[in-house]
Amino acid sequence: MRNAMQNDASCCQGGLRGPGARPPRGQKADIGLVGLAVMGQNLALNIADHGYRVAVYNRTAATMEEFVNKAHANGYRDAIIPSRSLAEFVAGLSVPRRIILMVKAGAPVDAVIEQLAPALEPGDVIADCGNSHFRDTARRERALAERGVYYLGVGISGGEEGARRGPSVMAGGAPAGWALLRDVFRGVAARATEDGEPCAAYLGPGGAGHFVKMVHNGIEYADMQLIAEAYGLVREVCGLEPAEAADVFAEWNLGDLGSYLIEITAEILRRVDADTGRPLVDVILDEAEQKGTGKWTSQESLELGVAAPTIAEAVYARYMSALKSERERASGVLPGPVVAGAGGARDAAATCSALPCRRSGEPGRVPDDDGRKGTGVDIADLRDALYASKICSYAQGFALLRHASAEYGWGLDLATVARTWRGGCIIRARLLADVAEAFVGNPELDNVLLTERFRRVMAQAQRGWRKVVSAAALQGFPTPAMSSALAWYDSYRRAVLPANLIQAQRDYFGAHTYKRVDRPGVFHTEWKRGL
Amino acid sequence: MRNAMQNDASCCQGGLRGPGARPPRGQKADIGLVGLAVMGQNLALNIADHGYRVAVYNRTAATMEEFVNKAHANGYRDAIIPSRSLAEFVAGLSVPRRIILMVKAGAPVDAVIEQLAPALEPGDVIADCGNSHFRDTARRERALAERGVYYLGVGISGGEEGARRGPSVMAGGAPAGWALLRDVFRGVAARATEDGEPCAAYLGPGGAGHFVKMVHNGIEYADMQLIAEAYGLVREVCGLEPAEAADVFAEWNLGDLGSYLIEITAEILRRVDADTGRPLVDVILDEAEQKGTGKWTSQESLELGVAAPTIAEAVYARYMSALKSERERASGVLPGPVVAGAGGARDAAATCSALPCRRSGEPGRVPDDDGRKGTGVDIADLRDALYASKICSYAQGFALLRHASAEYGWGLDLATVARTWRGGCIIRARLLADVAEAFVGNPELDNVLLTERFRRVMAQAQRGWRKVVSAAALQGFPTPAMSSALAWYDSYRRAVLPANLIQAQRDYFGAHTYKRVDRPGVFHTEWKRGL
Repeated sequence: MRNAMQNDASCCQGGLRGPGARPPRGQKADIGLVGLAVMGQNLALNIADHGYRVAVYNRTAATMEEFVNKAHANGYRDAIIPSRSLAEFVAGLSVPRRIILMVKAGAPVDAVIEQLAPALEPGDVIADCGNSHFRDTARRERALAERGVYYLGVGISGGEEGARRGPSVMAGGAPAGWALLRDVFRGVAARATEDGEPCAAYLGPGGAGHFVKMVHNGIEYADMQLIAEAYGLVREVCGLEPAEAADVFAEWNLGDLGSYLIEITAEILRRVDADTGRPLVDVILDEAEQKGTGKWTSQESLELGVAAPTIAEAVYARYMSALKSERERASGVLPGPVVAGAGGARDAAATCSALPCRRSGEPGRVPDDDGRKGTGVDIADLRDALYASKICSYAQGFALLRHASAEYGWGLDLATVARTWRGGCIIRARLLADVAEAFVGNPELDNVLLTERFRRVMAQAQRGWRKVVSAAALQGFPTPAMSSALAWYDSYRRAVLPANLIQAQRDYFGAHTYKRVDRPGVFHTEWKRGL
Repeated sequence: MRNAMQNDASCCQGGLRGPGARPPRGQKADIGLVGLAVMGQNLALNIADHGYRVAVYNRTAATMEEFVNKAHANGYRDAIIPSRSLAEFVAGLSVPRRIILMVKAGAPVDAVIEQLAPALEPGDVIADCGNSHFRDTARRERALAERGVYYLGVGISGGEEGARRGPSVMAGGAPAGWALLRDVFRGVAARATEDGEPCAAYLGPGGAGHFVKMVHNGIEYADMQLIAEAYGLVREVCGLEPAEAADVFAEWNLGDLGSYLIEITAEILRRVDADTGRPLVDVILDEAEQKGTGKWTSQESLELGVAAPTIAEAVYARYMSALKSERERASGVLPGPVVAGAGGARDAAATCSALPCRRSGEPGRVPDDDGRKGTGVDIADLRDALYASKICSYAQGFALLRHASAEYGWGLDLATVARTWRGGCIIRARLLADVAEAFVGNPELDNVLLTERFRRVMAQAQRGWRKVVSAAALQGFPTPAMSSALAWYDSYRRAVLPANLIQAQRDYFGAHTYKRVDRPGVFHTEWKRGL
C-alpha cells in the first residue's frame, strides 16, 4: 500500500523549487500564516517548499522564534519571515493579502479575525485551515464579506506528516478567495497515485469545506473503531500476538482494505516498547481520547435526519473507553457468556477458545484465506467484516454529505469529495477510487451500495461479516461499529421494517396519525374504542 | 399490567371534587392556561377536575370557543373561563398569577412570554409544560428572574390520556415557582400503584425538568424500537400472526416487562382494520415519524460524552424507516443471507424458516417458556433480549442524567426521577421501581447494572439475548437497538478494550500522545523512527 497511501516528499516534487533555490525577492511575502503549532509549522514549510515566501506569526513569540531559528538554519532564511506583531505581519504581505489561519478552532479564530480584519482591504483573503465548526465558518464568511474580505473554511487532513509533505485540502467559502489560493493549495497538496491529481478542491460556498472535513473525521472515527474491533477479535478470538496481528493487517493492506490506517496499524502492532520489551500497543492505556469532530458529525447527522449509526457508535466507543475505572469495577460484577465445558462461569471473551479459529502455526506468518468455508470464524471472515462495515460507514458519510448539500445549497460534487480523499488524508484508502467512480457514473446516486461494484462486494463479504457479528455476540466481545453497520445494511435493504408498529404506538398514545400502505392520506384510529 | 400501568379516572379520585360540585367563587381564576391543542385542553379539564378555576386562552379563538362550549356543556361552566385576549386572561387571574403554557416548543413559547411578561408582577409564575429544549428553558428562567417572575420548565408525559387523567410531571426551574404550583401538579398527576405517591416532582433548577423529560423521551424511542425489533422477530423469524404476537406481548406484560408500551402493543396487534379485515398494523405504513426529543437526547449524550447508543440507534432507525422508497429500491438490489437448502439465493429474513423457533400450535395461545434450553431462538429468548436491552437503554438514560446533573449543577435525585416515571408517563414500567430502589440504596451509583438485582437479571437474560442478536445477524433481520445494547453491555463489562490501538493510531498520525498502563504520565512515540 506504500504507493497509494504514503505521501512522502517525492509526491511534491512537481511544484518544488526548494528553499535554497529560491530567487531573491522584494520585502513582501506571498502568503501569511498565523498559528505555529506543529500543523502550522509544517504547512508553512510545505508552502515554502513550493516557492512561496511565507510570513509567519504566533501569539506566543517564543514558539515562533524557535521555529524560525530552526527553519532559517535549515535553508529557509529567505522563505520564512517572522513577524513580531500582527500589524507587522499584515504590512509584510503582498496585496491582495493571502492569510492562512492555523489556530485552535473556536474563540481563538474569532479573536485573530477580529485583530486582522481592520488592517485588511477588500480583495484580501483569509483561509481558516483549522477544524472549525462549519456553522462558525459560514458566520465568519458572511461577516467578512461585508468588508469585502474573502473567507475560506479549509479542511486540512493528513496530520503532521500530511501538513509537511502533502495533505488533503477541502476548501469551502468565497469562490474568489479560492481563486487567490488555489495554486498554493493544489501545489502543497498530496497527489493521488491513480492519476497524479492534487488532492485539493474547492467544494462549495459557506461552510462546505469544513463540513466535508468534519464528515471525513467522522468516517475516520468509524474506520479506527472498526480496525480496533477487528484487531481485538484477531487477538482475543483468534489468539494472535501483536506481531502476528501486524502481519494480518500488512496482508490486508495489499488488498481491497488497503489504506493509510491499516498500514499504520501494522506498523504500530510491530513496535516493541524499549522499556519493557513488550509490544508497545500492550502498554498503551485503552482510553481513546477525541477532539470533537466525530461528535459533531454524529450530532449533524441527527440534525439532518441521516442515519450514520456506525460513526456515532465509534464516538460512543471512545466514551466507553474513557470509563476505565468504572469498567474495571464492572468487569468484576457483570456476567459474560459462559463457555460450555470451560469449567463453570468463565468469561468466553477471555478464553479465546470457544470459537474454532484458524491461526497460523508460525508467528509472523499470515494465515491464508481458504479456511472460511469452515464453520468457525477465521481471518478471512474478519477481513470481510471489516471491509463490509467500512463500506457502510463510508456510505453513511456520503449520504450525510448528500443531504447536507441539499439542505444548505452547497452543490457538493461527491465524486470530487471522494477524489480529494484519495491521497494525503487519514482515511485515504483504495476504496475511495471506487466511491469516486460510483459518483462519476451517477452524481445523483442515493447510496454507493446501489452500484454493481459494491453490490458484488457485499454479496461476497456478507457471509463472513454475519459470522463475525454473530460470533462476537455469543462470545461477549463488543463490536459496536461492525454490528451497527450490519444492522444499518439490513435495514437499508429491507422494503418493509417493523416501524409500522412504532407509528401505531405513536398514534395510540399521542394521536400522531399514520399513513396506510393501501391508499394515500393521513389516518387516526380511536384505539380505545371497541377494546 | 392494568393495575400498575393504567391511569384511569379512579387514580385521580383522591383530589377530585368534580366540576359540578365546585362551590361558586369570585371572578378570579386560580390557574391560567395558554394553548388549547389537545394536550392543553385535557390538562385544563384535569386541573378543573381537581377543584381549580382555570382561565384559558388560545391564539386561534375558534379553537378556544369550541373547547369552552364543549366543556361548559359538560358541567365545567364555572371551572373553565375563556379569555378573548391575553390582557383579559392576565386580568382574570388571582395574584400571584399561576400560568401554564401548553404551546408549541420553540419560537411560540418566546412569543407568548413576550406578550405576557409586561403584564405580570414579581411573584407570578409561568410554567412551560411543552417539550421545550432545556437550554431554552434555562435562558427563559434567567430572563424572567430579572423581572421577579418565576419560571418553571415542566415536562409532562402521558400523551393525551395522561394529560386528561394523570400525567407524569417533571418540574425544573425556580423553586419558589414550584411552591406556587406544587399542589396543582401533584393533584393532577398520576399516582404510582406501588405506594400511591403522585408522579410529580421538582427535580432541580434551570432546565432540569425539561432535560429529564427529554431523556424520558429518548428512553421512549429506545423502548419503542426494541419492541418493534422484538415484534419483527416474533413475526418474521417465529412466524406468528399479529393476533398471536398480541398474545405474546400480553403475556410479557404480566411479568418483568410489564409496561404501558408493552400493554398497548398487545392492544394494537389485536386490532383489525374495519375496511380490509386485515390486522390494522399490517396496513399502517412503516415510516416512523418523530418530533425531535429523541434526537436532542442523542445530541446531548454526544455533547456530554455519555454513551447512549441504544437511544441513538432508535432515532436512526426512524430515519431509516423514513427512506421507504429508497429501501424499496435497495431491497431489489442488495444481497441478504442465503439460506442453505432454501432453493438458491432466497433471503432468509423473508422465509421465517431458517431458524428453529418454537411456535404455538394454536393461534392465540402463548408458547410456554421451557423451550429455551434448545438450540434455536424461541419466544423466551426474545423476551430476555427485549428485557436486557431495555435495562441497558434505561441505564444509558440514567447515566446521561447523572452526568448532566454534575455538569449543570442540578443536584438531580435519580431515585426521585425513577419514582416520577413509575406512573402516568409513556415509559412507565415495572422496571422503574427497581431502578428507584437502586438509587435509593446508593444515590451515587454509577450504573444501575452494578446492583445485585440487575446483575442477576443480566446473568439470567444474557444467554437468550446473545442468541437473538446472533441469529438476527445471520438471518439478516436488523436489530440495531438490541445489538447496540449488547455491544454497550459488553464494552461496559470489559476492563480492557482495544481502544489502546486507537490511541496509538492517534499518536502515530497526530502526535496526540497516550498514557501507559504501567506508569503515570503522558507519552509520545516517534513511530517512524526505527521502522
